This record gives sequence, structure tokens and C-alpha cells, in this order.
Amino acid sequence: MNDAVSIAAAVREGKVSTVEVTKSALARIAARDNELNCFTAVTAEAALTDAARIDREIAQGNNPGVLAGVPFAVKNLFDVTGLITLAGSKINADNPPATQDATAIAKLKQAGAVLVGALNMDEFAYGFVTENSHYGATHNPHDLNRVAGGSSGGSAAAVAAGLVPLTLGSDTNGSIRVPAALCGVFGFKPTYGRLSRAGVALFSSSFDHIGPFARSVQDIATVFDVLQGEDDRDPICTKRPPVETLHVMSLHQDISDIKIAIADDYFTKGAEPEALAAVQKVADALDVTEYVTIPEAHRARAAAFVITASEGANLHLDKLRVRPQDFDPATRDRFLAGALIPSSWYLQAQRFRKWYRDRVREVFQNVDVILAPTTPISAPLIGQQTMILDGEEILVRPHLGLFTQPLSFIGLPVLSVPIQQQNALPLGVQLIAAPYNEALILRVASVLEARGVVSVKVL
Amino acid sequence: MNDAVSIAAAVREGKVSTVEVTKSALARIAARDNELNCFTAVTAEAALTDAARIDREIAQGNNPGVLAGVPFAVKNLFDVTGLITLAGSKINADNPPATQDATAIAKLKQAGAVLVGALNMDEFAYGFVTENSHYGATHNPHDLNRVAGGSSGGSAAAVAAGLVPLTLGSDTNGSIRVPAALCGVFGFKPTYGRLSRAGVALFSSSFDHIGPFARSVQDIATVFDVLQGEDDRDPICTKRPPVETLHVMSLHQDISDIKIAIADDYFTKGAEPEALAAVQKVADALDVTEYVTIPEAHRARAAAFVITASEGANLHLDKLRVRPQDFDPATRDRFLAGALIPSSWYLQAQRFRKWYRDRVREVFQNVDVILAPTTPISAPLIGQQTMILDGEEILVRPHLGLFTQPLSFIGLPVLSVPIQQQNALPLGVQLIAAPYNEALILRVASVLEARGVVSVKVL
Repeated sequence: MNDAVSIAAAVREGKVSTVEVTKSALARIAARDNELNCFTAVTAEAALTDAARIDREIAQGNNPGVLAGVPFAVKNLFDVTGLITLAGSKINADNPPATQDATAIAKLKQAGAVLVGALNMDEFAYGFVTENSHYGATHNPHDLNRVAGGSSGGSAAAVAAGLVPLTLGSDTNGSIRVPAALCGVFGFKPTYGRLSRAGVALFSSSFDHIGPFARSVQDIATVFDVLQGEDDRDPICTKRPPVETLHVMSLHQDISDIKIAIADDYFTKGAEPEALAAVQKVADALDVTEYVTIPEAHRARAAAFVITASEGANLHLDKLRVRPQDFDPATRDRFLAGALIPSSWYLQAQRFRKWYRDRVREVFQNVDVILAPTTPISAPLIGQQTMILDGEEILVRPHLGLFTQPLSFIGLPVLSVPIQQQNALPLGVQLIAAPYNEALILRVASVLEARGVVSVKVL
Repeated sequence: MNDAVSIAAAVREGKVSTVEVTKSALARIAARDNELNCFTAVTAEAALTDAARIDREIAQGNNPGVLAGVPFAVKNLFDVTGLITLAGSKINADNPPATQDATAIAKLKQAGAVLVGALNMDEFAYGFVTENSHYGATHNPHDLNRVAGGSSGGSAAAVAAGLVPLTLGSDTNGSIRVPAALCGVFGFKPTYGRLSRAGVALFSSSFDHIGPFARSVQDIATVFDVLQGEDDRDPICTKRPPVETLHVMSLHQDISDIKIAIADDYFTKGAEPEALAAVQKVADALDVTEYVTIPEAHRARAAAFVITASEGANLHLDKLRVRPQDFDPATRDRFLAGALIPSSWYLQAQRFRKWYRDRVREVFQNVDVILAPTTPISAPLIGQQTMILDGEEILVRPHLGLFTQPLSFIGLPVLSVPIQQQNALPLGVQLIAAPYNEALILRVASVLEARGVVSVKVL
């Protein structure tokens, strides 16, 4: 299977029809999703209707858009007209279907892409494994006994398995980057507020981001272009910079003007050697030897836990009171604990957040892009609770967010690039920039891709 | 004693020197503050130095400013160069002196006003009575057995007693308006964020406002003009509208274009008949017969309590842990209780706040200025804990904020205008407008003043 941009080119050139591409995607889903469990809904009928319409427009000589005929799917917390927005929850299954597509879906459709379904996730996006007690675990295409990561596990696995070339997910503490790393695909979390969250079920509003999964940097940049722009429906009031067009300029450029460094200290501890080796591989390919310290990252992670648990608990407290038995056991206890956090802790975490944001802004005065592991380990087994690391037994699930939480905490743009390993599971490396510097990240990623260091192996 | 603008006119015209005016204020303070206890510091030496400098400038033909020679004083939570910023606390007495004046002080000085001292308040601005266990109670000039109100009690009483014509205070839940009402002076809380809080010790950052006390509408408008404008030192990032000049246009104008209504429902209950009669007196003078409902004001007050207690507790938690015995008993227990509020309550209160702000914005589509009582009762006795109202025994102190809290909660501009009563204590009426509509309030107040309905009786 090709990447989204190549599919769109073929469709536009008439080499293949949208209906053919769509049918092919639906066939792959039908053949393989029973064992993978990426999809919680397949919208075959609507997809084929949309595909036929696009083919008619092409036949009439109209421009079908940069993503013409590209099948895509979305984490099931995006509103899809006619589908119930589950957000991984059994309780939400009692809600009425959505009456309007999320803005991000509408924009992709407008660019010619064809929605084929909704994807599995941790309940209410509160997890790093996508072992959902209501809708089952999503399996990692690289090893079906292993988790896909989470909370956007269905989104990552569907791209890794080649079911669709493009998916959307959301990232609060790492929920795009962790599954992207564990499934060996690109996962992009742009700057907080940059992409509209209208029509997306929120988890922790001051942290939630949306973003794409794809198999090439070109695709990531193209989708980012499509999703940018103001949106009156967006619940956040963040002032956005003007739309940038990245998909052309990001490819095969000279990046000698970009100062790159490796995150040291916190970002080198608590990880398996392979995770650090993946960062070194990227650094070597870019001739990067400088190091930089992101200060107090451990506190940032702790504060992210406090704020996420507090905001998540507040959001679900009514239902926790009356239907506790209908929550996933994996999220219920954490929400209940979150409801008991003193407001003073929450406020202290927010106070620290301002301090930390200012310190990290100072770091970016001397460096443009920072390299760090995405996860400290490769995909654990489904059901695995603990592991031994540095001689200590630790809980696997929260540990997966060790390196992602301190970055989403202050809304930095991060791309997780996939590192494929011989006879081993894939890993991810985070390319991190200052707010709104997505272009720098994508230029670096494009060079890494051109040099063959990062790539997606479709299974 | 005249109002500030009249003093400045006399000074500019050479009828009196700044040094004479300053000495006169210092003499009044020396004579009367022992019994009133408004001041916690009198900066006589610096005041006389400043006064002499202003007189020299006048002698040289320079413009000394719109407040030339006007003595003023500030609540002791404003930074004054060389003074320790007490914020009513014993613990803060161990801090080093401030090295820079608060922005508001610097602006008044630049306009020619002369700072003569710092004023008493409830500890950390958390109270409505100014019965400070460390620095004593401030006495109401109308009846020395009664409280001045709080938390800016020293600021209100100093104006009511004629010690100085002009003071600054701060208002989080009513801390300017309550003492202004109980002492029978004008107290103005402009829109949240409109005046710089740089150099002011915060209490509950999302609520804290600063504003002036004075004895005429002209003075209030003039000080508001002087204090407006951008300030890089200000910790809030609120975007302010351009500076308006109010002090001339506000006087004796036709106000037939301003739609005025009386707040009904919540704002007519839990008050003594005199407080409602004061509102009626203002309404009658303006020929106002319309009523308007501010919805869910009781919830707004409850949410204000939750947020204030949470933010205040977080701010002081370190000291509560190690020096609880050094807190005022009146604030300590509330801060400790605030530290135990669940974050979910805090977040729910913030969530409600957005809803309430939108509802009140709708109310202001049909009305420009709303009338409501400032306090439900006149000044209680010093030491008084409870009172009987509608047959029920209630706690006096929190009840003083009944009508002010639901308004500061969403940062509306409010002027408390003084109603003097025959053989009875003064009361206040709140003139309330939509954000940034201070001009409407001051025009209405100016008409009320011209018609003799509102006035300050200097004691």
C-alpha cells in the first residue's frame, strides 16, 4: 500500500478510482480487523457513497483535493455524523448519534479523503495501552500478543497494518506518540490549540491535542496543512498563527540552519538501552552531538498526572456517582482518585506549569529541535502489568508515558518518528520544537526519511 | 476637607502649597488615627520630601499633574518602596521592604499625588470587617464601636474620616465595595484586568481587582483615568481596551440614553429593609421602574467561595504548614479548609463561571446599568459574630459579601455609591455595568451626586 499523497496522485491522474481504493481498504479491514481489533465501527456504505461522489467530480473535471480518494479513519472520540461518539466508553453507547462531523473530519473530507470508520481507544482516552474492557484490546500488527499502545491504539495499528494510510487520534499525555512508537508509524501532535478540537470528546481540556498518524512525512505535512486554520466551533480561544503550507517545503531540504540537540538527564533514565540507541541512531544520521537539558521534567510529569486526573474526574464525576460499574476498571479507580485530589495540588500544578513553560522557552533560545525517546520500552504484552527495569519492578502502563508527558504538559509540537529494528519491535523518537515551529520538525523528519533512518514497515 | 480634584486645583493655582496640604493631612492622621486605626505606616518624611519637590516644580512653572498635591494612602498590600508589604499579615512582617512602588502608586505619584502611608486590612485580604488580630480593628468613623468593613477597611475609613481624600484598595469578593458602603464613601472596582495589579500582593488571582476610594465621582473618574493603560509589569495578560478619559465627560450629563434597571430576585432577599430602601431611593431619583434578573447569583456566590478558598489556600499553604500559629485565627481555619477542597469542586466552579458569564452577558443586551444593594446590612459592631435576619440567626461576616460576590466573580465593573441616612449609619448601592462600561456607571453616579442623592459626609 502507498502513502496517502501517492494514492491521491493516482486517483487524480485517473490511474485508480476512489471507489476501487475504498473497496480495497474495506476488504483489508474485513480480512484482518477481526484479529487486530482496530475498528469499533466501519462506515462502508457512507464511504462508498462518498467515493462514488468523488469519482463523479473527477469525471466532471473538478479538483477533488490533495487527499482525493484517500481512505481514513478516526479514533472513536471524534464525532462522525450518524455514529455514537463512544470515546471508548460503554456509558457513552447510550448517547444519541452525532449529528455533525468533527471539524477535522469535515476538513479531510473536503480535501477528498474518504472516512471508512471509527477506531478503538482506551476508555475516555485515559491510558497508554488500548486494552479496553468494553471493546477489547487492539493488537499490535508487529506482534499480535502485544499492545498497540494508547490511548489512540486503533489509530496507530490501522496505519501499521496498512488497513488505511491515514488516521486521526488525540494526545493528552502521549496518546498519539506512544502508540505511534509502539506500532512503528509516524504520529504527530502539533502545538496545543493549533488544530481545531471542535466535535472531539475532551478528556483534560488544557492538555488535549488532535493529530494524524501516517506512513510518510509528506502525508503528515499534508494533513497538517489541511487541518490548520481558524474554526468558530472550536472550544479553545487560543490565538493561532496564520496557516503555513508545509507539505512542499518540508521535503529534502538543507537543514543546516536548524540547531538540533539530544535531551539529556531525565530523558536518558528509566529506559531500555534500545530506546536510547534509537535516539542515538537519529542523532548520528544528523551529525548531532550537542546535548540540552529540559529542567524539572520529572515535576512536569507529576504535575501532568495531577491536572489530568483532576480534570478527567471532574468531567466524569456525575457518571462515576451513578454508574461506577459501567466504567472500565482500568480508568474507574484513577478517576475516583482524581476526584479526591485537593484543589491546592491542582493549583500548585498549574502554578508550576507557568514556571516550567518559561524555563523550556529559555531552552529553545539555544536550540531548535530536541531529540528524545518516545517510549522507554517497546510494546509490552497484552495484559502485562509490571516489568523489571534497572533491577526494579515497575508498573508498565503508566511508565509508557514517561517521556511524552513532560512535553504535552506545555503544548509543544512533537513528531514521533518510527525506527524499525532488525528482529525486534519498532521504537519511536520524538522530534520536539518550540510552539508553532512544526515546520522545523517536519524538515528534520523529511531528511531522516530520505536518509532511510526512519520509515514505516507496513505489515 | 475638599475632594482631591479641588485640592489639586487649589495647589495648581497657588492658593495652597503641597507642603501645607501634606502637613495638614499628617496632622489629621496624628490627631485621629490612634482611635480609628486606619494606618499601619505613615510615611511622613518621604511625603514631605515629595511635597517639597512638587512645590518646586510648580514654582518653576511645570505642570504638576491632575492630582497635584493630593495626599493619598494605600491598603498595605500595595508595594511601597522602603516599606514591608504586610498584606495584613504578621508572617509578612519578616519580609524585606519593597524596592519598587506598585504601578498604581507610581502612576498617582506621577500625577502629582503624595503618598502618606499604608492602610489596615483583613489578613491576606480574606475578610469583610478589618478586625485584624495582629494590627487591630479599624474603627468606623460613623460609630467607633462598629467595623469599617473589609478587607480594605483602612482605605474606606481614612477617606470617611477625612484623613486623606483618596486611597487605593483591592476587591476580590467585595473588599472595596463593602467597606465603601459601611463607611459611606465612593468605592470603585473597575472591570477585571483593566487596572494594573503589578506590585500588589495577590489573594485569588482570577478575582483580584484594585480600585480607588474617594469622596466625589469626579475624584473616582480622575483616578480611574490616571490608573488606566498598559503595564508590562502586570501579571495578568488580559487585553485591555484603549484608555478612555472620563473625568470631564462624566459630569452632569444627560443620561437618557442609559437603560437602568433594578436587580430583583436574589438581590432583594436576605437584606435589612434599609438596604433595599437605599436602592429604591436611587431608583426613584433616576425614575427607574424596570427590574432585571441576574440568574443563578446564589450559585455564583457559592462558586466564588470555592475558588477563592482554593486559590487562597494554595497561595499560603507553605506557611500554613510551618507557621499556623502566626496566622490570624479569622483567616487560618478558612485557608486550612480551602486546602481540603477537592479539585473537582474547584473545576466545577470554574466551569459554572463560564456559563454564568455568558448568561450575564445576555442580561446586558437589554440593560446598561443595574442597581443593587452593596451590603445587606449597615456596619455591625466590632466583635459581632451573628445577627437575626428574617427570624434566622446568621453569621454576620460572610453575609456582608452577599451582594458583592456574584459580581466580582465575573469581573464586572461596579461603583458603590454612598447613601447617607438621617440618624443612621450609611449604606451603599452598587451601580453595575457590562465589562469595560465604566463610563456609563460614572455618568449615572455623577447625576445622582448632582441631585444630592449620593454624597460623602466627612466626619
